[in-house]
Amino acid sequence: MPKIRFYPDNREVEVEKGENLLRAAMLAGVHVNASCGGSGTCGKCRVVVEEGDVEKQPTAKLSDDAIAKGYTLACTTKVLGDAEVRIPVESQMGDGRAALEREHRSVTHGSVLTSKDLSELFGEFELEPATRRLYVEMTAPNLEDNLSDLERLKRELTRVHGIVDFAVDLDCLKEMAVKLREADWKVTATLVEGRDGECPRLIRLDSGDHSATHYGLAVDIGTTSVYAEIIDLNTRESLGRVSDYNSQVSCGEDIISRIVYSLKKDGLTRLQGLVTDTINGLIKRLLEKTGVSKDDIVNMVAAGNTTMVHLFYGINPRYIREEPYIPTVNFAPTVEASNLGIDIAKGARVYCIPGRASYVGGDITSGLLASGVYKTDKVTLYIDVGTNGEMALGNSEWLLSCACSAGPAFEGGSVKYGMRAVKGAIETVRINPVTYEPMILTIGQTKAKGVCGSGLIDALAELFLTGIINEKGKFNIETGHPRIRENNGQGEYVLVWAEDSAVKEDIVITEADIDNLIRTKGAIYAGITTLLDSMGMPVEAIEQVLIAGGFGRYLELDQAITIGLLPEFPEEIVKYVGNGSLMGAHLVLLSQTARESAKDIAKKMTYLELSTNPSFMDNYVSALFLPHTNRDAFPGVMERVKERSGV
Amino acid sequence: MPKIRFYPDNREVEVEKGENLLRAAMLAGVHVNASCGGSGTCGKCRVVVEEGDVEKQPTAKLSDDAIAKGYTLACTTKVLGDAEVRIPVESQMGDGRAALEREHRSVTHGSVLTSKDLSELFGEFELEPATRRLYVEMTAPNLEDNLSDLERLKRELTRVHGIVDFAVDLDCLKEMAVKLREADWKVTATLVEGRDGECPRLIRLDSGDHSATHYGLAVDIGTTSVYAEIIDLNTRESLGRVSDYNSQVSCGEDIISRIVYSLKKDGLTRLQGLVTDTINGLIKRLLEKTGVSKDDIVNMVAAGNTTMVHLFYGINPRYIREEPYIPTVNFAPTVEASNLGIDIAKGARVYCIPGRASYVGGDITSGLLASGVYKTDKVTLYIDVGTNGEMALGNSEWLLSCACSAGPAFEGGSVKYGMRAVKGAIETVRINPVTYEPMILTIGQTKAKGVCGSGLIDALAELFLTGIINEKGKFNIETGHPRIRENNGQGEYVLVWAEDSAVKEDIVITEADIDNLIRTKGAIYAGITTLLDSMGMPVEAIEQVLIAGGFGRYLELDQAITIGLLPEFPEEIVKYVGNGSLMGAHLVLLSQTARESAKDIAKKMTYLELSTNPSFMDNYVSALFLPHTNRDAFPGVMERVKERSGV
Ligand code: FES
Ligand code: FES
Repeated sequence: MPKIRFYPDNREVEVEKGENLLRAAMLAGVHVNASCGGSGTCGKCRVVVEEGDVEKQPTAKLSDDAIAKGYTLACTTKVLGDAEVRIPVESQMGDGRAALEREHRSVTHGSVLTSKDLSELFGEFELEPATRRLYVEMTAPNLEDNLSDLERLKRELTRVHGIVDFAVDLDCLKEMAVKLREADWKVTATLVEGRDGECPRLIRLDSGDHSATHYGLAVDIGTTSVYAEIIDLNTRESLGRVSDYNSQVSCGEDIISRIVYSLKKDGLTRLQGLVTDTINGLIKRLLEKTGVSKDDIVNMVAAGNTTMVHLFYGINPRYIREEPYIPTVNFAPTVEASNLGIDIAKGARVYCIPGRASYVGGDITSGLLASGVYKTDKVTLYIDVGTNGEMALGNSEWLLSCACSAGPAFEGGSVKYGMRAVKGAIETVRINPVTYEPMILTIGQTKAKGVCGSGLIDALAELFLTGIINEKGKFNIETGHPRIRENNGQGEYVLVWAEDSAVKEDIVITEADIDNLIRTKGAIYAGITTLLDSMGMPVEAIEQVLIAGGFGRYLELDQAITIGLLPEFPEEIVKYVGNGSLMGAHLVLLSQTARESAKDIAKKMTYLELSTNPSFMDNYVSALFLPHTNRDAFPGVMERVKERSGV
Repeated sequence: MPKIRFYPDNREVEVEKGENLLRAAMLAGVHVNASCGGSGTCGKCRVVVEEGDVEKQPTAKLSDDAIAKGYTLACTTKVLGDAEVRIPVESQMGDGRAALEREHRSVTHGSVLTSKDLSELFGEFELEPATRRLYVEMTAPNLEDNLSDLERLKRELTRVHGIVDFAVDLDCLKEMAVKLREADWKVTATLVEGRDGECPRLIRLDSGDHSATHYGLAVDIGTTSVYAEIIDLNTRESLGRVSDYNSQVSCGEDIISRIVYSLKKDGLTRLQGLVTDTINGLIKRLLEKTGVSKDDIVNMVAAGNTTMVHLFYGINPRYIREEPYIPTVNFAPTVEASNLGIDIAKGARVYCIPGRASYVGGDITSGLLASGVYKTDKVTLYIDVGTNGEMALGNSEWLLSCACSAGPAFEGGSVKYGMRAVKGAIETVRINPVTYEPMILTIGQTKAKGVCGSGLIDALAELFLTGIINEKGKFNIETGHPRIRENNGQGEYVLVWAEDSAVKEDIVITEADIDNLIRTKGAIYAGITTLLDSMGMPVEAIEQVLIAGGFGRYLELDQAITIGLLPEFPEEIVKYVGNGSLMGAHLVLLSQTARESAKDIAKKMTYLELSTNPSFMDNYVSALFLPHTNRDAFPGVMERVKERSGV
């Protein structure tokens, strides 16, 4: 990989060929002003390539004179080979000493569960999906061999595929006679295997041989976001993945407000319709993207928290929010996709991975399955940094779980310019501790539209480390810096000026946003400590930390520790599982054994109700500081704060 | 029982107390003119009670003078004790010798399968319905005992009723949380047992204890008529029975025309809707009649021919009518009543008794079950004298079945004044061989609206015996009698003059009607002989004859033999099972063992396709005469004809 050396800081970093210089500087821990998210429009990220192999883009933001002197925009300049780059004073606005005195802090790729890790895990389960697509050729009936159509099909399925008996969907019978004859008695029968007391059922009949096109849909139904993935059930492969906000967000950002909404007249029906619309929208995009026919998607496995599953099924969730917090079901039945309005193959089924309790749902079961927690010896902390802050502690022997109602802040909810991690979202933020100028990168390096979870954690950590906010999250307005200002009696920091943003407004982080973020991180931290307390274990007992959640993969560990979201875990024990919930759904689509394992996990897990737990309340209040009221628990962070203050 | 002696015929008969004198005369085989069906409006049935205990009604049809002389209307005069009755010449219109020289021919009650016979049969099966209603009281959840609602219910059903596991209907989950709490955790769970690969399922939850109100609906879906009955599944009792025309009649009278209709645009949907409407109409009447709540009718068992089951389920019946006559299913799956639009308890199931082939359906299986054919040693002929003329020959060892497409004539279809056996239908007809005056009785003894099956068979037999029609069914118009006339070149006989009928028209039997009736009886006779032929058996090998069908109970054996509908069976081997199809449905509602027996019958039965059977065609053509081309097969009938001709 090419090596890039930055002057005057004299720091070097290795990057992929094709990476741009702004991101290289970010990885090297070198500050370069960058206001437009790396979209090449603010003209602030000027650097001089003194030596080496780079590919520059023409730009109107630089004068001919400057270009002649070797100036280029860092964000639009691609690395082709080794290079030496000088950051001029105007782009750095501070001296060398003020450069961020930190090692490269972005996610180490080795610590993420890669698709290779997963395929090892997935490979352990035999390919044994709940659905089967079986091709048969029958002889046409005559006066002597005059079995009914269904009996004829049954005879052939027994003879060729050993299927002894099965039930049939009424819808499948309605046009069976015509279908068999139009297909000249050559058809593919799609059967769903019986588990949980269900018998095998014929759910679909198709003309000709469709055994090679056998797909499933894995869905993660989050409170804020929904992810969907088409899985080839013959090859185990994911053919494509898409995501979107859960449209229910318009009826309330968190679980509690959704439940309240469901109690209104037609509220439940509306919420069900909204999530169905969201999923159908994702399906449509997936079909376009993959070229798969919807008639070949014959099974869907969903993972979601308990409230999401209730709302998806149209089950009244009312008592989930009233003490003692009882759901109607943890083990929801398999139902027909059409009964839920899901637009995949007629006859297709929907199964939801079982949960443990009202606030520890199938998404956690699914993640524990996908990440192998249910069979490891290591004491593992599994956290889903989603709206509900669900987590589990344990290993193959025992599992203790809880949910801390983190709120949607890290998913972009309840934050003024919060947004999901999609194109245009600020995902990385650095603030120069002297000049208070930010260095921001957006997803897709387009003009910024808002800030996603990792950007918010970054912003909070940077505002704290630079002393722009104090340990209570309040602004030090006296700096007199134009980016640090008061608005309607509330402090705020301008990440992107209106002229450089895609929304033509200043993109800011407000004191209210910071309050929300602190409450969110405090709840998660308190959840972790309460789980440990109730097992009588110290933080050090944790041998493995698995971080899941839609943005889990982009969460930077030291930033998360800086704000006190996580204890000071050694980097080497932390792994990112990405969307564990979706991965578990993928696994269950592939394997009935995995499905049984998910059931076992849900049955085995102990649930700790935090909302009535006094120890949790104490832990929570203590965690409403940056990084924490107990500074002794965060020696590394305090060290870093001291360094910065010494500037 | 009171004895009534009629003069001048000097014939005596025993009748029930409360019976009227017209019916007593009919039973005695004494002719009394009766034109208004016994409704007391024609004034023709004048008799003189010479001695004895009767209750007369006031009437304007008799002069004071006549009343003073002891005249009364036979049809409105009730028998209270023994009596001697003289029939005046004007009511008899013929001399004593002309009285019907026949023994009392109405159905011997001993030969009908009585409810006592049935309860013996029904008693053999343990009471073991597919549905169970189980009452449980649970403790409310708390933070320690925080199972989900469904798991809590499951725990209690296991503890109290030993139900280890069951699946759940989605609809049942939707409001479960609210229902349990409103019921203070005291509920009745309705479960349906799993057979045919289905597992037990929770289909319904009701507040409080409903275990005592557990009802099922037995339905016979005939091509022409539909019968429904509410059964108490705790006591085995029938609480009420009602019937109506199948509304599908408006789309065609027989199976073939229904199938043709189903191929039209929306035809199938319409046919399904019509039979559903018919059944729902019957349910409504039953609910009113019995006071049962529809929410307590948790199961329905239907028996019908194969086409009726296809149409009821909305299954395309197209290939039933095309050689080689293949249905989609003989063993139709259990479905939710709501999926078929049947308005009983939410969650209730519908099961259809399995059939054998396109033209031997679940109605025959059901009848063979109900009448015990499947376990008797006697070689039995079971005939359903319905639209499709289905029949079976056999015993516990073997069963051979066929269908002869009798047509709807005996159910009142394809006959000008044909109607179902309901109030106002002429059910008995005698014709004086000298005067050609009829003696008719209607159901309910109201003015006649038309003629039902037994009345049509009577009319055909009487017209033949009196020589009004010849053996080909053609009229001898030369009699010059006003009742025997030509209309548009077609002979007809006036049963009731317009002034005496409820429809204000002459009620007639036309030559076209007679053709239809002869074709119908010929088809049935040919079916019987073809079954015998194919077993190489003579008529005498039949040890038991069971006659089923909506009007089976009113069919008079010697009239049926007179027209050649049945061979000359000895009276003692013939039994009437009434609606065997409905009775089988009743049995299957009560017992899962009976349900298994029905399956065994359907599997065991051999099916003979008549439509392509050359022997059947020969037998049919030979049977298109009165009584038959082969007069030697009907020595008794020929004797009777000779007697009459000798008058
Ligand atoms: S032009 Fe490069 S960051 Fe704006
Ligand atoms: S009045 Fe008695 S039959 Fe008409």
